[in-house]
Amino acid sequence: MASQLNLIKIGGNVINDPDQLANFLRDFSKLKGPKVLVHGGGRKASTLLKQMNIEPRMVAGRRITDEKTLEVVTMVYAGLLNKNIVAQLQSMGCMALGLSGADLNAIKAQKRVVKDIDYGFAGDIDQVNATVIARLLESDFTPVFCAITHNQQGQLLNTNADTIASALAVGLAQHYDIKLWYCFEKNGVLMDAADDYSVIERLDKQRYRDFTASEVIHSGMIPKIDNAFRALESGVHEVWICGVEALKPEYPVKGTRLVL
Amino acid sequence: MASQLNLIKIGGNVINDPDQLANFLRDFSKLKGPKVLVHGGGRKASTLLKQMNIEPRMVAGRRITDEKTLEVVTMVYAGLLNKNIVAQLQSMGCMALGLSGADLNAIKAQKRVVKDIDYGFAGDIDQVNATVIARLLESDFTPVFCAITHNQQGQLLNTNADTIASALAVGLAQHYDIKLWYCFEKNGVLMDAADDYSVIERLDKQRYRDFTASEVIHSGMIPKIDNAFRALESGVHEVWICGVEALKPEYPVKGTRLVL
Repeated sequence: MASQLNLIKIGGNVINDPDQLANFLRDFSKLKGPKVLVHGGGRKASTLLKQMNIEPRMVAGRRITDEKTLEVVTMVYAGLLNKNIVAQLQSMGCMALGLSGADLNAIKAQKRVVKDIDYGFAGDIDQVNATVIARLLESDFTPVFCAITHNQQGQLLNTNADTIASALAVGLAQHYDIKLWYCFEKNGVLMDAADDYSVIERLDKQRYRDFTASEVIHSGMIPKIDNAFRALESGVHEVWICGVEALKPEYPVKGTRLVL
Repeated sequence: MASQLNLIKIGGNVINDPDQLANFLRDFSKLKGPKVLVHGGGRKASTLLKQMNIEPRMVAGRRITDEKTLEVVTMVYAGLLNKNIVAQLQSMGCMALGLSGADLNAIKAQKRVVKDIDYGFAGDIDQVNATVIARLLESDFTPVFCAITHNQQGQLLNTNADTIASALAVGLAQHYDIKLWYCFEKNGVLMDAADDYSVIERLDKQRYRDFTASEVIHSGMIPKIDNAFRALESGVHEVWICGVEALKPEYPVKGTRLVL
């Protein structure tokens, strides 16, 4: 039997709050066995764009990445956030290694093809180099991925962090029993958005269809859950949508487990 | 006999010129055997500081790193420059891995003690984790270091790139025969600053003392050469001060070789 690997994605809301981030990193550093962290961007990139008089442009929740914006997200995601997370993990005794998809050619992507919208330097993932990442894990290193990839022709690309987590999980599923955690600002997928304890503990595809039809599940949750189901369908062992607190062994709310 | 490792430091002038950088990276990617790159900062950090209305502060050629400045240099050095260099090297078939000193606890430093001047978040190197870097090299990875270290307590620190190169060379000298190249904007240490072909081919400590006394060698070259001699005295096999062109096998000017 393959050994278990915890692959955890944290989003912007955790990153925007230094105390919450430090708490999360402490819990993450305590997880036994091989593990991988993927982090999103937080609001710092938008702040910096404004300071540089570049207007952040979003379409349907996705950033339009022109050349200047790519510079800024590369600086913030791969530089400021990634290295501060790595330094904090190292202070907790975790042998963290910060990576973009360009490092070790870990994640190869291609510039998104222009259809209706030109997303600029946005990357769609082609291939995860699972062999090289497994080699790092065998050395007891903990990869910490930011949401920057490359096209193997020298071009960096801005890539959705949820998609990176899912692609890494699928790639590493050849080597490990993956538990993929999408940690976000709620305790899980909720029956009632206003009640953080109305967590749907188990969500299969049939219930998911029913909940989207009745609009219990809507908007931003849909691409997240679609991503999560794709990972399950591609060999990932367990997928959870949960709060960062779910990493604490004593926390009663484990989040939403997705099942096929 | 230990195998040879090329450890090359490039400075800001190469980085500021995209064509020169691309040329250098092509030559670097062609070097056989294990190799390490250390890169300085270039002028981008100062440009960004100005855009953010932070006045760059230098004392005797060294940057004063307050909290905001540390953010900026972390973004520029570890993010923008490091990841673009890595992506370019990957496009040339070189298995580059971008690193700060925090990654894999590769370079531990401490915040510089305040004497006359408070340099802020400037790091003086305590220890290089040669074992972990050698493990990367044995996997045929090419480490690419930016000039950011950490104190192992979660704090990133801005650190002189010449010093990083020298500390890495000394640390790795236990494992490899190191050839350390300090590449900069001249062809080597010059007899006459106005004549780029007046390279001193071989510089021992006695000649160095004579040349500093007669002011043939002065100002910025002195800390660079002192760093280089310290590396030689600490087990580094060969140390050169040279231009980036020196990497081209056909280029006639090899630079200045330092000898004890």
